[in-house]
Amino acid sequence: MSFRAGGSAVASAASRPARTSALAIAAGESRAPGSDSSRRGVATKCSATAAAAVVIEGQRELYGQLCKKLKEVERLAGIQGLLSWDEQVMMPAGGAASRANQKTALAAVIHEKKVDAGLGDLLRQLQEEQEGEAASELSVHEAAVVRDAVRDYNHETRKSAELAGREADVEARAYAAWVAARKDGDWEAFAPSMEENGPDILPRFSVAHLPILTLVPRAFFAACSSLRKNNNTKTTTGKNAKLGKMVSVKRDVAEATRSELGGAYEGCLDQFERGMSTERLREVFGELKAGLVPLLRAIQEKVAKEDKSGAAAERHPTPLHSGEQWGKDEQAALCRDMAEKLGFDMSKGRLDVSVHPFTGGPGPSDVRITTRYSNNWMEGVAGTVHEVGHALYEQGRPGGDMEDLPVSRALSMGVHESQSLLWERMVFQSRPFWKFAAPLVRARFPHTKGVSDEAFYRGLNRVAPSLIRVDADEVTYPLHIILRFEIEQGLMDGSIAVKDVPSVWVSKMKELLGVDVPGDAEGCLQDIHWSVGAFGYFPSYTLGAVMACQFLEAAKLALPDLDSSLEDGNFEPLKTWLNREVHARGSLFASPDELLTEVTGDIMRPSALVEHLKSKYTEIYDL
Amino acid sequence: MSFRAGGSAVASAASRPARTSALAIAAGESRAPGSDSSRRGVATKCSATAAAAVVIEGQRELYGQLCKKLKEVERLAGIQGLLSWDEQVMMPAGGAASRANQKTALAAVIHEKKVDAGLGDLLRQLQEEQEGEAASELSVHEAAVVRDAVRDYNHETRKSAELAGREADVEARAYAAWVAARKDGDWEAFAPSMEENGPDILPRFSVAHLPILTLVPRAFFAACSSLRKNNNTKTTTGKNAKLGKMVSVKRDVAEATRSELGGAYEGCLDQFERGMSTERLREVFGELKAGLVPLLRAIQEKVAKEDKSGAAAERHPTPLHSGEQWGKDEQAALCRDMAEKLGFDMSKGRLDVSVHPFTGGPGPSDVRITTRYSNNWMEGVAGTVHEVGHALYEQGRPGGDMEDLPVSRALSMGVHESQSLLWERMVFQSRPFWKFAAPLVRARFPHTKGVSDEAFYRGLNRVAPSLIRVDADEVTYPLHIILRFEIEQGLMDGSIAVKDVPSVWVSKMKELLGVDVPGDAEGCLQDIHWSVGAFGYFPSYTLGAVMACQFLEAAKLALPDLDSSLEDGNFEPLKTWLNREVHARGSLFASPDELLTEVTGDIMRPSALVEHLKSKYTEIYDL
Repeated sequence: MSFRAGGSAVASAASRPARTSALAIAAGESRAPGSDSSRRGVATKCSATAAAAVVIEGQRELYGQLCKKLKEVERLAGIQGLLSWDEQVMMPAGGAASRANQKTALAAVIHEKKVDAGLGDLLRQLQEEQEGEAASELSVHEAAVVRDAVRDYNHETRKSAELAGREADVEARAYAAWVAARKDGDWEAFAPSMEENGPDILPRFSVAHLPILTLVPRAFFAACSSLRKNNNTKTTTGKNAKLGKMVSVKRDVAEATRSELGGAYEGCLDQFERGMSTERLREVFGELKAGLVPLLRAIQEKVAKEDKSGAAAERHPTPLHSGEQWGKDEQAALCRDMAEKLGFDMSKGRLDVSVHPFTGGPGPSDVRITTRYSNNWMEGVAGTVHEVGHALYEQGRPGGDMEDLPVSRALSMGVHESQSLLWERMVFQSRPFWKFAAPLVRARFPHTKGVSDEAFYRGLNRVAPSLIRVDADEVTYPLHIILRFEIEQGLMDGSIAVKDVPSVWVSKMKELLGVDVPGDAEGCLQDIHWSVGAFGYFPSYTLGAVMACQFLEAAKLALPDLDSSLEDGNFEPLKTWLNREVHARGSLFASPDELLTEVTGDIMRPSALVEHLKSKYTEIYDL
Repeated sequence: MSFRAGGSAVASAASRPARTSALAIAAGESRAPGSDSSRRGVATKCSATAAAAVVIEGQRELYGQLCKKLKEVERLAGIQGLLSWDEQVMMPAGGAASRANQKTALAAVIHEKKVDAGLGDLLRQLQEEQEGEAASELSVHEAAVVRDAVRDYNHETRKSAELAGREADVEARAYAAWVAARKDGDWEAFAPSMEENGPDILPRFSVAHLPILTLVPRAFFAACSSLRKNNNTKTTTGKNAKLGKMVSVKRDVAEATRSELGGAYEGCLDQFERGMSTERLREVFGELKAGLVPLLRAIQEKVAKEDKSGAAAERHPTPLHSGEQWGKDEQAALCRDMAEKLGFDMSKGRLDVSVHPFTGGPGPSDVRITTRYSNNWMEGVAGTVHEVGHALYEQGRPGGDMEDLPVSRALSMGVHESQSLLWERMVFQSRPFWKFAAPLVRARFPHTKGVSDEAFYRGLNRVAPSLIRVDADEVTYPLHIILRFEIEQGLMDGSIAVKDVPSVWVSKMKELLGVDVPGDAEGCLQDIHWSVGAFGYFPSYTLGAVMACQFLEAAKLALPDLDSSLEDGNFEPLKTWLNREVHARGSLFASPDELLTEVTGDIMRPSALVEHLKSKYTEIYDL
C-alpha cells in the first residue's frame, strides 16, 4: 500500500490553515524531494493537541476532495457498464465501429482521471497523515476508501504507457488469433500469440464479437481495460512486429504493477482475488483434488454398475430433456417470476436476453441481468438464478455516503461468484427449493404435470465428466478449474512451455476427469480467458464455490428454519442475511479471508465444498 | 466567426518546421500578447512561395490535430445520446438518481473539452492561416469543420461559469414550477420563474420526469445543456435567492454568447436555426398568416354548412376511430414494416416504445427511434413515419472522413423537422401513399376490409382548430407556432410582460384559430419549452414544414414518376434523392437558406407551404 514514487515532504501541519479548499494543491506545491526521514520528522514535530486537531481538520478536507474525484471516476465507469450492456443486448450490428470509438474516448478520459497527479497528491497526504501520530478521524469505511484508492492509483500509474500499449496490442492480436484457431481446433496457430518471438497476427476485431463471460463485467473489464482501449486501435505490423507476446507481457505487467507480491502469477491473481497467493491456492486446490477425484470415481463406478442393471433411469427420471413444448414466452415468464421471488428488485434492474448471459449495467440502482431461452429450458432458468445471485450482491452494495466509492465495490471476483453459486447451486439445486419450484413449472408447462418434486431435483443433479467447463456439473467443475490453474501457473513460472499446453491438457483431463480429449477446440482452446489476457481469473470460479458453502453454513446457523422457508418460497430471510453479512460490507475488508472470518469464523475452508458435495452425492447416488 | 479573446501572435510560419507533431503547443507557447497588427505583420512577411508551402503544411497538421479533438468530443456526446435513449426506453425507475450523477459527470468532461485552451489555440492558428495570404489547402468540407468548430468554441467559452450556473439554476427551478403550475392550470404560479424578482421555487427534479419533445435530442440537448448539467445539482435557497429569472437570464445568455447578432431573440433563434433573423421570421410568418387564416376560415365555413346538411360524414368516412380491435402487436408489426419499407436501416438502428416518441441514440450508425401504441392506432403509425423521417436524415449524414466532425451534423432543427414532416405530411398524408398503405392496413386489421384507399386518405386529412399544438392538423399547426413566436419574441424585447401572457394567448388564439381558451393548462402552460429555456425553438417546427414543401417540389422535378413510385411502395428514389441532396450535405452550408438555394434554387419560400395547403384542402373540402 505504499507508493513507488519517492517519498515527499508536506508542509508542516501546524502551519497549515484549518480550512483551505486549496489544501491539496498548496501541500502539493510545497512538496520537496525530501527523504523518508524528513517526512517522519515533520510528523513527529506536531504532536501537540492543537496541532493534532488541525491535522484532523485537514484530513477531513482532503478526504472530501478525494471522494469527489473518486466518485467522478466511478460514475464514468458506470456509463461504461451501460455501454457494455447495450452492446450485448440492444445495439444493432451496424453500430459496432462507432461504439468502439465512443468506448475508446470514454476509456481515455477515465484513464486520465485515474492517473491524475492531483489524485496522487491527495492520496500521499492522506496516507502521511494516517501514518503520522495525530489520531485519524476517518471511520473504518473511510479508511477503506483511502486504502483501495491508493491500491488502484498504484496499479494504474505503475503501468507505463509503453507497457499498457504493448499489453493492449498483444491482447487484441491474441484474441483474434484465438477466434481463428478455435474454429480450426489448432493450438499451434494460437501459440505464437502467447510466446515471445512468434510471428505477428494482424487483427482488426470489434468488441461486438467478444463473448461476455458469465460474470459481473465491471471487475472483469477492470482487468481487461487494455483490451477495451484497443478495440479500435488501428494496429499496424511494421514497428510492432517485435512486440512481446502474452505470457511475457503478463509477466511484465505483474512485475511493474505488483512487484511487492513477489511473482508473476501472484500479480495475475491479485487482479481478481486480492489477498490470495499461489501457495495458498495450491493448498486449497490440493485439498479439493484429494476430496473430489475419489468422489467422482465412486460416482462413475456406481453409474457404470447401474447402467448394466438398468437402474440409472430410475435414479434420474429426468424431465429436463429439451423439446418444442418448452415455449420461450413461458420460459421468460417463469424466469421473471423466479427472479422476482428470489428478491431481484425490478425497480432497480432489468432482465433481458443476450447470447451470453451476464450481469452488468450502470450501477447498484440499475442492475441489468440477462439470460437466454433455448429448447433446453433449464439453461434459461438456471442462468437466471445464477445472474440473480450476482445481481442481489450488486443491488445490495452499500449506498448512501459510500455510493460510488471503492468501499462500496464487490470485494473480489470469487466473492461475487460465491453469491451467484450460493443461489444457483446451494438453493436452486437443493431439494427444498424444488418443493417450491416444481408447482410453478407444472403450472407453466402442463406436460410436466406428472413429474415429481424429487424428479426435478434429481434431474438437476447429475454428475458426468465432460470436455467442456461451462457445461460441467458441480462435482467436476472444480477439476476443470484446477487443471487450468496448474497450466496457467506453469506458463507464468516457466515450468510449462506454450507449445506443450495441448499435451499437458490431455494428460491432466485424463488424470482429473478420466476424459479423453479429441482435439484442441474441445480442449485447451475452449475458453476465451487466456486470449484476452485474463490469467489468474479461473480460480475465482471455484473459490466462489467454496465460499458459497461456507456462507450457506453460516446462514443455516443464523436461520435454523432456512430449509422450510425455501420450501415455502420465502427467500427473504436468506436474502436479508446475505445483504447484511456480505453485500452491505462491500470492500470494507481487505480480502475475502477477512470477510469470511467476520461472517463465518473461518478463513477459506475447501473442506466445506468437499463435505457438501460428498454428503449430497453420496445420498443421491447411494454410494 | 471571430474570437472575443484578444488576438494572439503566432510564431512566424517561416521559422516553423514543416512537420512537427507538437506544432500547436509550440505555437501556443511562443504566443506573445501582440496586437492585431503585429499578427497581420507576421502573415504579410511570409508571402514567398516556400514560406507559403510551409504554411499549408502547418495548416494540414493543425487541421489533423483539430479533428482529433473534435472527434473525441463528438464521441462522448454520442454516449450522451445513448444515455438519454436508455433513460426514456429502458432504465428502471430506481436508476434515475445515479443516472443523473453519471450524466453530470460526463457533461462536465465534455464541457471541459469544449472550452479547452488548446482547442482555442488550434482554432486561432487555423483561422489566422486561412485569413493570411497563403492559399488554403483545406477542402470546402474541411473549411466548414473549422467554421463550425470556431462557432461552437465561441459559444461555449463566451458563457461564463457564473452565467452557466445561473441559467442552469433558473431552468431547473422553472421546469419544476411549470410541472406544478400546469397541473393546477395556474400561470401565476409559474410566472415568477420567468420574471426577475419573483419568489424562489426550490425544485429537486429528475430528468426522468422530463418529457422528451418529438425531435432529434442531440440538437435540443445542445441548447438545454445547462438543464442537463443541473439535473443533480443540489440547489439551495440562501445565496441563490436573488437569482434572475428565465427571461432575463436568456437575454444575458444571448448577449454574452451572440452579441454580434444584435438582439436577445436573435440569440435564442440562432441556437436552433442558424442564419435566421427575427425580422425575416416575421416576414415568413406574416406571409403564412395571411395565407392560412383565410384558408382555415373557408374550411370552417364549409364544414359548418355541411354539418347542417349532414354531408360532413361523407367527406370524412373515417376509419380512424380508436377501439380495442387495433391490437398493439399488430400495430407494432405494421410500424416495423412501414419503417423498413420507407428505408429505415434496422442494421443501423432500432424501433422501440417510449412515452414520448423521439429519435435519438449514439450516432448515425445506431439511430434509435421510438413510437407508442394506443387505441388510436394512427398515432403510432404517424409517429413512426415522422421519426423515420428524422432517422433517415441521421442515417444519411456524411461518414468516412467527416464522421464525428461538425460538418456531418444536421444543419438545423428546422432542416431536421423538414425531413420528418416531408415523410409524415408530404408522403404519409398523400393520396398516392394510401394506394400502397391501405392494403397493408387491411391485411393486419381485417375489420377495415371495407375501407377504401380514399377513406384512409381523407380520414388522415381533416382540418379542425383545437387548443393543443401537438394535436393540430397541418393547416392550423403553423398558427399555433406563430402565436408562440409572437409571444416569446415579445417577452424577449419587453413588449409583452410575463403576467400578460395568458391574456395575450387567449386573444391570439381567438384571432388566429377562432378558438376560446378555457384555462392556462390548455393554453399558455401546455408546452414544456419555455420552462426549460428553449426560447427560439418553436419556429423550427414551421420552418421545417415550409422547407419540406420546397424539398418535395424539387424532388418532384428531379423524379417525374415520384407519385407512381409512392403508389407502388417504392420509396427508394425519394430516399436516395434526399440522401444526396440534403442528408449527405450535413452542415456543409452555413445556413438553411444556403442549402435550400443549392437544392431548390430558392431561399426559404413560405408560399410553398401556403400553396400546398391551399391546393390540397381546396380539393378535399371542395372549396
